[in-house]
Formats: sequence, C-alpha cells, structure tokens
Amino acid sequence: MGKDKKFVEEVTAMEDDFARWYTDVVKKADLVDYGSVRGSMIIRPYGFAIWENIRNVLDQKIKETGHENVYMPLFIPESLLQKEKDHIEGFAPEVAWVTHGGSEELAERLCVRPTSEVLFCEHYKQIIHSYRDLPKLYNQWSNVVRWEKTTRPFLRSLEFLWQEGHTCHGTKEEAAEETHKMLEVYASVCEDYLAIPVLRGQKTEKEKFAGADFTLTIESLMHDGKALQTGTSHYLGTGFAEAFGIQYTDPDGELQYVHQTSWGITTRLIGALIMVHGDNRGLVLPPKIAPTQVMIVPIAQHKEGVLDQTYELKNRLSSIARADLDASDKMPGWKFNEYEMKGIPVRLEIGPKDIENNQVVLVRRDTGEKQFVPMNELETKIPELLNEIQQNLFEKAKKHREEKTSRANNMEEFKEHIHAHPGFIQAMWCGDTACEEKIKDETGATSRCIPFEQESIGDTCVVCGKEARHMVYWAKAY
Amino acid sequence: MGKDKKFVEEVTAMEDDFARWYTDVVKKADLVDYGSVRGSMIIRPYGFAIWENIRNVLDQKIKETGHENVYMPLFIPESLLQKEKDHIEGFAPEVAWVTHGGSEELAERLCVRPTSEVLFCEHYKQIIHSYRDLPKLYNQWSNVVRWEKTTRPFLRSLEFLWQEGHTCHGTKEEAAEETHKMLEVYASVCEDYLAIPVLRGQKTEKEKFAGADFTLTIESLMHDGKALQTGTSHYLGTGFAEAFGIQYTDPDGELQYVHQTSWGITTRLIGALIMVHGDNRGLVLPPKIAPTQVMIVPIAQHKEGVLDQTYELKNRLSSIARADLDASDKMPGWKFNEYEMKGIPVRLEIGPKDIENNQVVLVRRDTGEKQFVPMNELETKIPELLNEIQQNLFEKAKKHREEKTSRANNMEEFKEHIHAHPGFIQAMWCGDTACEEKIKDETGATSRCIPFEQESIGDTCVVCGKEARHMVYWAKAY
Repeated sequence: MGKDKKFVEEVTAMEDDFARWYTDVVKKADLVDYGSVRGSMIIRPYGFAIWENIRNVLDQKIKETGHENVYMPLFIPESLLQKEKDHIEGFAPEVAWVTHGGSEELAERLCVRPTSEVLFCEHYKQIIHSYRDLPKLYNQWSNVVRWEKTTRPFLRSLEFLWQEGHTCHGTKEEAAEETHKMLEVYASVCEDYLAIPVLRGQKTEKEKFAGADFTLTIESLMHDGKALQTGTSHYLGTGFAEAFGIQYTDPDGELQYVHQTSWGITTRLIGALIMVHGDNRGLVLPPKIAPTQVMIVPIAQHKEGVLDQTYELKNRLSSIARADLDASDKMPGWKFNEYEMKGIPVRLEIGPKDIENNQVVLVRRDTGEKQFVPMNELETKIPELLNEIQQNLFEKAKKHREEKTSRANNMEEFKEHIHAHPGFIQAMWCGDTACEEKIKDETGATSRCIPFEQESIGDTCVVCGKEARHMVYWAKAY
Repeated sequence: MGKDKKFVEEVTAMEDDFARWYTDVVKKADLVDYGSVRGSMIIRPYGFAIWENIRNVLDQKIKETGHENVYMPLFIPESLLQKEKDHIEGFAPEVAWVTHGGSEELAERLCVRPTSEVLFCEHYKQIIHSYRDLPKLYNQWSNVVRWEKTTRPFLRSLEFLWQEGHTCHGTKEEAAEETHKMLEVYASVCEDYLAIPVLRGQKTEKEKFAGADFTLTIESLMHDGKALQTGTSHYLGTGFAEAFGIQYTDPDGELQYVHQTSWGITTRLIGALIMVHGDNRGLVLPPKIAPTQVMIVPIAQHKEGVLDQTYELKNRLSSIARADLDASDKMPGWKFNEYEMKGIPVRLEIGPKDIENNQVVLVRRDTGEKQFVPMNELETKIPELLNEIQQNLFEKAKKHREEKTSRANNMEEFKEHIHAHPGFIQAMWCGDTACEEKIKDETGATSRCIPFEQESIGDTCVVCGKEARHMVYWAKAY
C-alpha cells in the first residue's frame, strides 16, 4: 500500500480525535454536506442510498406486521400542540415557528412538526368510533424539525428523516404488546441488517418520552465508548386519548378511551453505522445494507481484453450481488482508497495476469484479507464472503461492547470506570430520580436503559445504599 | 342491485356538480381527510398506497435513466431564495416563513421550500469543478409548501408530496435532451401505468416556470372538460448558474457555466386518476397502480367451506395479482359498494353454488361486466382481465379527450366551443403574449401547450389575425 499513500484522503485518526474522525468520514465518504442553514444537512447520493436500504428493510417489516403508511401535514397549529401538557413542555423549546404565509401574518402560529402525535390524535378522533375500528396501525415516513443548539450530521440536526408509528388499541395489554413488538422489529433491523448489537430495555421515568407512560429503547455502543439510543417505542397510555377525546364503543356498548403507542427510528442510524463499524480508513458497511457490495476495479485497464472482461463480470455478478464497476481513468490505488473510504464490503481486482490465470482477487474491507478466487467459483464464493463479513462485523461489535461493559458496586468504582474505560456500566439502582441525577451530575453518565434481561449484581443502590430495584446500564451518550 | 341500494354511500352525480363529486369521492374512497390547518391534507392509507405505487414505478425509471436520489434541507434562507430574481418573483407570494426557533427570533427568516432549485444550486456550486464532475443527475422525493388561497385535495394544497429532479450539464444540447427525456418518462408513467393519455408540448413564455428558459409539459383532460397539467420539465439555461456561480473547467481549461434542468410530478397525479377514470359509483383505478387488484368477496360465508375456499383462493392468487379478501361480517352488498367506491379493478365473488360448480364470478369495475370463470382458469383469466381493464381505461380516456377536442378558426368559434363543449381547443396563435392574455380574459381558457406534433389548421392568429406561428392547445384548467 506504500505507493498508494499519496492518493489517500487522510481522515483524522479516531484515537486522536473521535469527533473529528467522525465528521471527516461523513464528509470524505460523500455521505453528507452542510446546508446553508446552521445545523441542517444535505444527504448526498451515497448517504441517501444507505438510508433507502434501511428504509426498504424496515418498511417491509412494518407492513408485514400489519401497519399502513399514511402522510400527515407538516404544520401543527400552536393550540393543537398544547393539548397534551407533558408533550408540549417537552417539545416547545425546540420547535420552529411559521408566522407568515405569503405576505400575511397568520392569526395562529404554526409549529413545524417535531413529531406528529397530536396530528395523529386529531385524525384518530375523527375515524375511531367502535371497537370494530381498532386496532389502527399507522406509520409515516417523513422529515421532522427540532431546533437543536449543537448539531452533528445524522446524530443531532435541525431536520432529520425518520419513520414514526402511531397506533390505537382497545386495551392496555394490546398496546403494550405492540410497544414491545415494534422494539423487537427495530432490534432485528439493527442486529440482522446493520450488524449493530443492541441492548433492549426500558427508559427510566426521567428519560422517557414527553407524554408517554413508558418508553422502551434499544441502545448501542459506539467505538469511542459512548452509547447511542438507536430506536424507541412508547406506550402512551390513555393520556393523549383523554386530551383529544379519542373514544370507542366497546362490545358492551360502553365508551372507552383508546390505548396508544408511538415508535420511531431516524437517519441517526447512519451515524451509528459509522461509529460502530468505521475505522481509520473510513466507513465500513455491512453487506446487507451496502448500496454497492462488490466494487470491480480493473488493473492495467488499457491492456487488451481487461475492460471487456470487467464489463462481462459486472453483468455476471449483478444477479448475485449489488456489483458496480469503476472503469474511469483514475489510478487503481486511487480507486482502492476511494472505495475503502466508502466502506464497500468487497473489492474485486482483475488484471491481465488474473485473466491469464482465470482468476480474480477479492479483498475484504473489514479485515483487509486478500484472496485469489478461480473465475468459476465466484457465484458461490462471493455470497459466502458477504455473509462472512456481515457476521464478522456483528461479532466484532458485540465483542467490543462486551469489552467495554463494566460493573460498578459503588460510586468510586463507577467514577473510575467512566474515566478509565468508558463504555456501558452496569450498576444497581433504587429507582429514585434523585440518585439518577446524582450519577449524571458527578459522572456525566445517564441511565441508558433498565434491561429486560435483569441480572442482580448487588443488593443496594450504588448512590444511596438503599435497597436496589433494578440493574441499569449507564453510559455517556450521544 | 336494487336490494343493495341502502348500503350505497351516495356520491353527488358528476353531471350535477363535478366539484362536489370530486370531493365526495376523495372522502368516501378514504383517500384523504382534511388537516387542522386550512388547505392541508391527511393522505390516508388507501391514498398513500396509490402514491407509493406511482412513486415506485417512477423512482425505478428515474434510477434507470442514471439519476441518484438525495435529500436537501426543508428551509431556505431568504437571502438565498432571492439570488435568482425571476424565481423569487414567482414564488415569494406563496411561501411560508419561519421566524422563530424555540423561543428565539431568527436573525434571518427562513422560507419553507416551495421548490428546491436554489438549494441544489448552492450545493452544485460546492461539488462541481471540472467537466469530469458532469453531468450531475440528482432527484429528491419530498414535501413542499405553497401558501395557496383556494385549495382542493391533491389538486392544490398547502403542502404536497412530489419528486423534483435537478441536473447540471456541460452543454445546452445535453440539458435540452435531458429536459425532453424526463418529460417522456413522465408521459410513459401517465400513459402506461395511470392509463392517462397526455399531450406533450412546450409552455408559452407566459406560462413557463419562474426562472426557466423553456418549460415542457404534459397535459391531460379531466372528465369535466378541464385540463390538468400533469408534469413539467424545465430547461433552466445558465440563469441559475450565473446567479450562483456554478462553473466548471472544460477540457480546454476554460471556465464555463453549467446548463441546468429541473422537473417534477406531484400527488396531484392522484387527482388526475380520480377525474379521468372515476364515475358516479366512485373511483376507478387502473390495475397497474391499484393497491388491490382483485378483491375476494365470499357469498353466504357462514355456509360450510365457503371461508376456507376464499382463504385458499387468496393465497393461490397472491402470486398472480395483488389480491385481498374481505371476510368481515358485513353484507356482501355493502362490500360490493365499498370496493366499487375504492375503484378496485376486479371483484371475485364465491359462494356455495360456485363452489359446487367449481367456478367463481369475476366482476369488472370499469364496465360492470360479470362472468363465470372455471376455477382452474383463474391463473390465465385474471391477468388477461387486468390487462384488458388497463387497456380499456386508456382507450376510453383517449376517446373522451378526442371527443372533447375541437378546433377554432376565430374568436367566435373559440367562445362557442368553450361554452358549448368544454375541452381542449386547438387554435392558431401568433406568439404574442397580448393575444394569449386576451383569450384568457375573454374565455377563461389558458394556453396549455404548444404541442410537439404541430398541425397547421390555419394561417392566422385567431385573436389578431396576424401570421400564426403555432398551433396551441387551449383549455380551462385546474
């Protein structure tokens, strides 16, 4: 690789400055550019193609579980947003307000949706009357706006893309089941497609969604030891239904409030992909969601027959993988670096000598491993290799998370861990918000989740020493 | 059908009040509900499923022609919108303004995108440097906002969904070719999938897009004789490039401005579907974009074996058509009306007697024709029938357009036609905007397009009597 050094568009080493490494990768892999409004982002073709793949996988699962897509308006009248008081308190500080339409000042200002609970509620009130109208299982793919002070592409931006599910059910049990079911759908997208292992659990009262009875979450660990909330699913109880008057007649003729859920994942998942799998040469994409899985790079392409062979190969491979070809007149070394930066799982090199030997060279992005493969074995070898890479990325991320997970029996251990080896910290907690806040104040770590898989690692709260109720995962987080 | 009469959710007859017929269908076919902000719409599951089908067809064609999807921000700073003067003049009266973020007043107000030319230009300026960077072929699927005074679902609403293509080319020829190519893609989606015949042509100077050198358009005729602009494709020349400084170095090392295009279609196409194919029993959908192509309705479903058979049928048919089943306990007559209202192309009825005779009943939505089909012929008969319906809808719409197209040799004839049989009027025109305006003032008709297929039907302008330059299609329009 020495002679290609000059072609490398260097990224900051992640050990030196993780935040700069991240923004370097985001820019140099052509995922994003900055918009002209502070904190907004342009999602470039390569970034958007990744989002489309995530979206397609998730959309199919959302439909398979019986949900229907709809589209709600972008604007919410201020009076409507104010109907559920916890909700407005949570969102008011970060919404953008439209005050003029054309040259006229509006009688009531409109908020650009930060989320659409109140719009769905207003609609549900119109269309739900009887138990026969339930459940209503709706989902929406859209943009939302949150007026954030500090922003970073994908992780926290003025505007982002997401899906938001909103459902109504006749009973608490059904709604709670839905909340869990959709969390599991998210977990499966993360683990089985993005190769990102997640912790599944419940948020504390302090960390739950504004307006929810309880919030479930999946949490994942980034390369720098910080946690990222990768998806949430909320049981809203009957709070919104009461505020909006969403009632149905049950089979006995009694009026009942519906039980609601909402759940969402966002373009933030692309940030997770970068920070879980990336390395100092750039992005590393899991094959299942990589826009291009195999990039063919001809060697000495001016020599007779080389380009013909590569075009033929591209056609041949297109039925077994998302294969592409770079036949531009750039140097092979430049192309190697370019597609490593973009995290393409497999590079296929083919030159005059390979053609003579009826073989190609396959290079894995995840390990850098290089192998010669006979031309007639590509149909079996490439899918195998893509599977192996997918598997390896998941295992590696899981191992990384395990290595960066530690246990604290008291506050000294907690502080030592957070300082010496940042990652998830398992610690017992009494359930008191005051203790949770103390941990945040003294260590910077927040409660990430009360995992479904509880493990008693002690009897007392690490803060107050009183009886512990839960084992909690804590971490500094994005 | 007499005994089912009571189940019919009546729509206003289109002959009595076409506008009311339209809104009745939109509501009763569950396509749309009104949002809480005046002029905004909720696209309900059935409406959104139609949009998804249109989008999937078009997105594939956009990608096949070499375009890449991106996502640009929702907000445009006022100063950026003002850079191209024709453009801002055209859009300023109808934009929504964000003036506050959270509790702070913004230093510069932000416009909610009515279209994204200026955002793309700002980005292109950053990423285009050399002729090697061209062409840039980008597309975006998004929501846009236009502060319209009078609104109607799908046709003219405060917010709508669309795609907007934005491309940069090295030469005028290439950009003009792109403009024509994408118009043809739109025409193909309309004719081959939506079964809507379109006229292809160019807009007059008066009717072209704000900021374009020329605008191409496809125009279609609604059932009431009014025209609807169904898609437009603009050659922007170098006007935006000059305003934004988008230049590239050509192979000779000279700096050149890029030549740009933009093109878009919107959720308005759903309005076209309704008004081209619908009838007094509701929506009529072309099979190729119908979310459900065959609706199975069991007859006497309480009788032994009937429901089992329908479930089996649904499974069996799912490989040849988008088939669904209504096994609810509603009366068959109610179901018939419901799915007629929703425009489902084929109804399949199956009851005890049919099972005995090893047959089913197929009923066409477009003609009402009913036929008994042996169970073992469904795999050939259903695809055939769907094809026939698709074909028939197109032919019917074409015939309707032809019947409603008339020629005017002078203003008297023009006025008579517009009054007596509204539709397209072919008339010769000198090319002078004053004459075009006179026609609009005196008849209410606007120039729809200067068709590519010119036909000389006279030598002089119908208004001023001077030498005619073009044959133009005129109509009252949505």
